[in-house]
Amino acid sequence: MTEPEQAPEQVIEANLNFYFALESLDVELMEDVWLMDANACCIHPGGERLAGWDAIRLTWERIFKSTTYMRVDITDVSVEVHGNAAWVTCLENIATSAGGQTHRARAYATNIFTYEEDSGWMLVLHHASLINE
Amino acid sequence: MTEPEQAPEQVIEANLNFYFALESLDVELMEDVWLMDANACCIHPGGERLAGWDAIRLTWERIFKSTTYMRVDITDVSVEVHGNAAWVTCLENIATSAGGQTHRARAYATNIFTYEEDSGWMLVLHHASLINE
Repeated sequence: MTEPEQAPEQVIEANLNFYFALESLDVELMEDVWLMDANACCIHPGGERLAGWDAIRLTWERIFKSTTYMRVDITDVSVEVHGNAAWVTCLENIATSAGGQTHRARAYATNIFTYEEDSGWMLVLHHASLINE
Repeated sequence: MTEPEQAPEQVIEANLNFYFALESLDVELMEDVWLMDANACCIHPGGERLAGWDAIRLTWERIFKSTTYMRVDITDVSVEVHGNAAWVTCLENIATSAGGQTHRARAYATNIFTYEEDSGWMLVLHHASLINE
């Protein structure tokens, strides 16, 4: 089992790995951070709930195909660990380029992780919503 | 401790109690469902993260003061229990009346609960985002 005192740092690292996969526009890196089962859940800004990894994977593929550049600078990171579950909230400072246009936005995200014996902290829920500026 | 087989129903009930408090426009009922400590977290649609019960309470007071009527019909409820932590995602079908105007909206919510020995399942995080129609 995870040493409790190490857990918050491990969760923060798992959270950073998610954003690294996002910036890399690489679905295979996404597979390394998500719990790829039916319980995985994703709510993109303005979107409906996507239930299960198969549906989630399809949206990342679509987003990555239409995006040429993405940087997500994470600030205001807060983490809570409760046994083998943990959640992170953070501010996503997003810069994307798609179709020759650059777009900037700020969003808040809730990311829930569960600790798996064989693979460590895995993302089971990602919920992001844009901030009205 | 909670009987594991009862836990999902208890979490669903705690979730319903949150929406009952919301429809009642009653901050005291909110106090019964929220974990009133510094770790509580709330992200309203389009909003920044509110950290800690004191900040969260202030927004409910403001919302309730300016709202004359609120109905939130909850559908598509999904619940996950991991030890003494649990989370619900659900679709909020919202009808509000404020300043003589009725407004309808749909939002997805992520609600995280922790199990407390003396008070049962308490809400520690509420994150809601409007669906782009």
